[in-house]
Amino acid sequence: MLVVMQATATQADIDRVCTAITEMGFQPLPMPGAQRTTVGLVGNDRRVDGSHIEALPGVSEIIYVSSPFKQVSREWRAENTIVTIAPGVSFGGTDVPVIAGPCSVENEKQILQAAQVVRAAGAVALRGGAFKPRSSPYSFQGLGKEGLELLKLAKAETGLAIVTEAMDDDGAQLCAEYADCIQIGARNMQNYSLLKTVGKLRKPVMLKRGMAATVQELLLSAEYILAEGNDQVILCERGVRTWDPSSRNMFDLNAIPAVQKLSHLPIIADPSHGTGVRDRVPPMARAAVAAGTDGLLIEVHPDPNRALSDGAQSLFPAQFTDLMRELGPIASAIGRRIAAL
Amino acid sequence: MLVVMQATATQADIDRVCTAITEMGFQPLPMPGAQRTTVGLVGNDRRVDGSHIEALPGVSEIIYVSSPFKQVSREWRAENTIVTIAPGVSFGGTDVPVIAGPCSVENEKQILQAAQVVRAAGAVALRGGAFKPRSSPYSFQGLGKEGLELLKLAKAETGLAIVTEAMDDDGAQLCAEYADCIQIGARNMQNYSLLKTVGKLRKPVMLKRGMAATVQELLLSAEYILAEGNDQVILCERGVRTWDPSSRNMFDLNAIPAVQKLSHLPIIADPSHGTGVRDRVPPMARAAVAAGTDGLLIEVHPDPNRALSDGAQSLFPAQFTDLMRELGPIASAIGRRIAAL
Amino acid sequence: MLVVMQATATQADIDRVCTAITEMGFQPLPMPGAQRTTVGLVGNDRRVDGSHIEALPGVSEIIYVSSPFKQVSREWRAENTIVTIAPGVSFGGTDVPVIAGPCSVENEKQILQAAQVVRAAGAVALRGGAFKPRSSPYSFQGLGKEGLELLKLAKAETGLAIVTEAMDDDGAQLCAEYADCIQIGARNMQNYSLLKTVGKLRKPVMLKRGMAATVQELLLSAEYILAEGNDQVILCERGVRTWDPSSRNMFDLNAIPAVQKLSHLPIIADPSHGTGVRDRVPPMARAAVAAGTDGLLIEVHPDPNRALSDGAQSLFPAQFTDLMRELGPIASAIGRRIAAL
Amino acid sequence: MLVVMQATATQADIDRVCTAITEMGFQPLPMPGAQRTTVGLVGNDRRVDGSHIEALPGVSEIIYVSSPFKQVSREWRAENTIVTIAPGVSFGGTDVPVIAGPCSVENEKQILQAAQVVRAAGAVALRGGAFKPRSSPYSFQGLGKEGLELLKLAKAETGLAIVTEAMDDDGAQLCAEYADCIQIGARNMQNYSLLKTVGKLRKPVMLKRGMAATVQELLLSAEYILAEGNDQVILCERGVRTWDPSSRNMFDLNAIPAVQKLSHLPIIADPSHGTGVRDRVPPMARAAVAAGTDGLLIEVHPDPNRALSDGAQSLFPAQFTDLMRELGPIASAIGRRIAAL
Repeated sequence: MLVVMQATATQADIDRVCTAITEMGFQPLPMPGAQRTTVGLVGNDRRVDGSHIEALPGVSEIIYVSSPFKQVSREWRAENTIVTIAPGVSFGGTDVPVIAGPCSVENEKQILQAAQVVRAAGAVALRGGAFKPRSSPYSFQGLGKEGLELLKLAKAETGLAIVTEAMDDDGAQLCAEYADCIQIGARNMQNYSLLKTVGKLRKPVMLKRGMAATVQELLLSAEYILAEGNDQVILCERGVRTWDPSSRNMFDLNAIPAVQKLSHLPIIADPSHGTGVRDRVPPMARAAVAAGTDGLLIEVHPDPNRALSDGAQSLFPAQFTDLMRELGPIASAIGRRIAAL
Repeated sequence: MLVVMQATATQADIDRVCTAITEMGFQPLPMPGAQRTTVGLVGNDRRVDGSHIEALPGVSEIIYVSSPFKQVSREWRAENTIVTIAPGVSFGGTDVPVIAGPCSVENEKQILQAAQVVRAAGAVALRGGAFKPRSSPYSFQGLGKEGLELLKLAKAETGLAIVTEAMDDDGAQLCAEYADCIQIGARNMQNYSLLKTVGKLRKPVMLKRGMAATVQELLLSAEYILAEGNDQVILCERGVRTWDPSSRNMFDLNAIPAVQKLSHLPIIADPSHGTGVRDRVPPMARAAVAAGTDGLLIEVHPDPNRALSDGAQSLFPAQFTDLMRELGPIASAIGRRIAAL
Repeated sequence: MLVVMQATATQADIDRVCTAITEMGFQPLPMPGAQRTTVGLVGNDRRVDGSHIEALPGVSEIIYVSSPFKQVSREWRAENTIVTIAPGVSFGGTDVPVIAGPCSVENEKQILQAAQVVRAAGAVALRGGAFKPRSSPYSFQGLGKEGLELLKLAKAETGLAIVTEAMDDDGAQLCAEYADCIQIGARNMQNYSLLKTVGKLRKPVMLKRGMAATVQELLLSAEYILAEGNDQVILCERGVRTWDPSSRNMFDLNAIPAVQKLSHLPIIADPSHGTGVRDRVPPMARAAVAAGTDGLLIEVHPDPNRALSDGAQSLFPAQFTDLMRELGPIASAIGRRIAAL
Repeated sequence: MLVVMQATATQADIDRVCTAITEMGFQPLPMPGAQRTTVGLVGNDRRVDGSHIEALPGVSEIIYVSSPFKQVSREWRAENTIVTIAPGVSFGGTDVPVIAGPCSVENEKQILQAAQVVRAAGAVALRGGAFKPRSSPYSFQGLGKEGLELLKLAKAETGLAIVTEAMDDDGAQLCAEYADCIQIGARNMQNYSLLKTVGKLRKPVMLKRGMAATVQELLLSAEYILAEGNDQVILCERGVRTWDPSSRNMFDLNAIPAVQKLSHLPIIADPSHGTGVRDRVPPMARAAVAAGTDGLLIEVHPDPNRALSDGAQSLFPAQFTDLMRELGPIASAIGRRIAAL
């Protein structure tokens, strides 16, 4: 923790800050500058709350220098964590697995078709929502447990691993039973009760970045899961909210190298939500691979024109097949490989 | 729903869109313009998902014109909803109630002192968190049920109504038992499972705006509560996230008249989170009253320098007393009154 | 400047940073912590660029602690600067002057009517654009010099001071000749050539905050003007850009106390651009006064329905008259007064 | 233009809107819906300002359906515009030219070294600022005309095309004389006087996206240049401002396909400003190519540790050489080629 004094602070002001730091059990270290003095605090500052020092006379600002996360950081573990959600489907290594499928599980025919289509094109896992968080209470909310049964069926038929979203404790228990990886959606990124629940479940978790969450907040939310003993966490960039209405979201590919530098956890990219528009999914999926993503999450629907949700951003089967063909050479160019079952 | 065609769209493109609208069970209404044609859809468009029309050749854009909320809107109910959380503590009328107290309940002495201080200065309700959503799992998480017991004690001693936050279903049940109004925090504004739970509890709910939630999303989240049969909802503006680090949040006072125009629900303002800095709380509290807020939520701590959380934005008792004195004449100037017990 | 080391940094890494700081001519001051070491730099750090230190092994982050502005800061001058644009029209003291008028000067009749209307209601200065920055090159761009002549005429008839915008060097010269205060618009807040030009003109300048400018950037742009020798600068909050489409802009009233703490320059508020909607102008104008604004800038048009620009946010004459009546008691409540000619 | 009525609007309200549209010279077309009526306006709506209709009783909202840009749009010209700034250096075709060099021209040795280094690695144009827009008036402002002379010298020695920034009219004239392409920086994207000036110069212009400019605003600013008769415009995505402090900017690669769909103008990407951190430049440069960028603008300095500006985001020569090697296969994967002299 650093206490930046005002240029006009008196020696008495500085002394008062030093006394306050001493009373907190740390050692103050004043650094006079030509413009102003800064007082450092020597000792472990992880849990120090300096807000009352901010109110002392002559204090301009408090700066915290400790990173607030711990187990998620590369300093805690230097090697990449490899998260394996099913045999052959691992995130964090050289291979880049692609998870694909519809926004929602709608019925047996739709999800089986979707599974076959994405399997044939090279995906290794199937996505599909049984519990859907919708802005409006009047929108389709998912098939619930029946949807999970259908996903299980799709797995049995295709061998694809299953990734599906949980919205509350009961849903998380069910997803843990039926699926290979529990998705926590953007709206629940800071639902700490739910994070603790999935932290206790010992099942791989895919944690999506909140609508306006900083990279640091994403990592802190992951820390909640690791703090409960579950380090099988895959992070996911899915676009964030900005002031530009030209896209549903702004796809922050920068977050990929940023997270990979700060954390040992794998991070994947969701260009479907990241852009919100079908035509931009292929270029952004390619860009994500070139940027070094550890996986992709892509919406594909057997018949997007009849999708119950997110139709406009779902790829047609043929588009997805073409895209998968393009991704291979790009992965090769940076020494990686699109994962295959 | 409006379908805006490209300037280069052919008559065949326009016909194809009209056919698609007809197939959806609505009547198409083409409006030729000098630049381009727009095709309107006549009929109830609340639940229409036009995303597959967006993909037809010659289509430039889809514009939705129906407002997605229903029971929360002024069109549904023209008169203000008055939410009474305790005898004499009503939001949505001429009176402006002030809720004040510490960020967290820390211990008996602290919460009782806080209650006495804010009661003496003119507050009509006490805030204080027993369950605290914290970005880091290693920060103080609140006293839990013990905190609720202490709030009940403070109510018994002072007569103040109690407002406290719930983070999950179990917490919501407990808060309903001990408190007068259940707060849903910014991070849980789109935790739809929790919204449904409090919608069923028939207890007043204070719903805080999410960190980066639009006014429309705030209203849609309230719609979840009303859709379950509970219309005792108070909305709360508490500052939102922007790109300017000069404040912890940007306090969007504009949201007050905006919500009051769109909805019959009361909206209050939280200048403590709205600014994040003690010195700015009084000017922004005054501004909120001048802007027509239906209530205030203010952090006051008997000894902010020793607060376990949010010390830097908590008012000292004397500051709060001064502020309460300033608010009266401002409320009078616009024909309102600071509520008194 | 502070150099935050990684938790895994070796003593050799720390030594290398200390050597680099010494080579830059400053004295390094290492502060070991339980988690990580921070190295302070003792000496004047105003112009230090530590970016190459950031690249040294073991370095996690560089933190700058010097404020980058100088002459605009309260540390440079503790007393408020009073900017007087015409006899009796001063910003920065107890009085709160109101500048009102149409977005653009359209013709003689319109501007004279506007001037009479706002004069009668109590404004002390007239606004009106002769040079208009418009997003589209095909929108009305203003009357140019003819507009300035009409403003001069309006001044002669009403005694109101004149505030009008300049967009380039030639325009600035003309405005200096015809008007009492030169406005620099939001889009030109970082047009440094223009800032230098008006810094040399020795005429009061009203500098509007850029669309997405931080408070610090606003002050740095003002610093450009002061650095040329002109300290007659009035800052103006006019709403900023965010992700919420429910308002044209988000009106950041928080910026008023924030600027007043950091700088001695007066800051006024423009609720017309700050909200973009006529109905929200009165509540936000009241809020600005309650928050302590040093002045108001309000769009009023004799016939908003026929305005060539910004009609939807211009007040009708009667609305403005009502608003002026409401503002007095609010100003009184905080010990100020709406300025009168 | 569409006028959305409130659900509670009466037939008289609708009639009043129809009359107002008729008075404006257009034909109204009411579309009754189950929820509410919408009134369309038939006829050319490019310049229609409906703000006074917004104020009529019963009106909920005005929606504009015409795109406000004209000459920059793909509807105006379907084929890509190819902008050739020097023989062999063309933007908008299959080839992807790379412009590289230091932030500022510092001295002869530095700029010649930089030119040789980037030439050897495969760049086809040299960037380097002679006029520098800096947030603080006390930062290095560039060498001015002397810098232009040095750029000319670098061109003579290496054959690289020259791209350099102009900040005002005089600078634009000089840049036109000395350089091959005039850059308009992010801070001047809405400096309309300067846009008009470069529109008249008939020299290629590279227009950088403003700090918080939407894609539509970027295109409208380009429209200012085309409206003066100059269609040699290259757009540039350089990162935008958001609420996440983890990066200097958020790099909006989504803007590349978005612009390419809306406009015939080429768009290039600047990953140096887009990320602000050296380590993220290579992954984001690769991502930009995979996303289909029409060119790259990259900061490279012969000795970044001693750079006078932007050192932390400038690549070392060896990093740039490595990056150029990686880009080729990625370009090939999507059927393009990194341009070579």
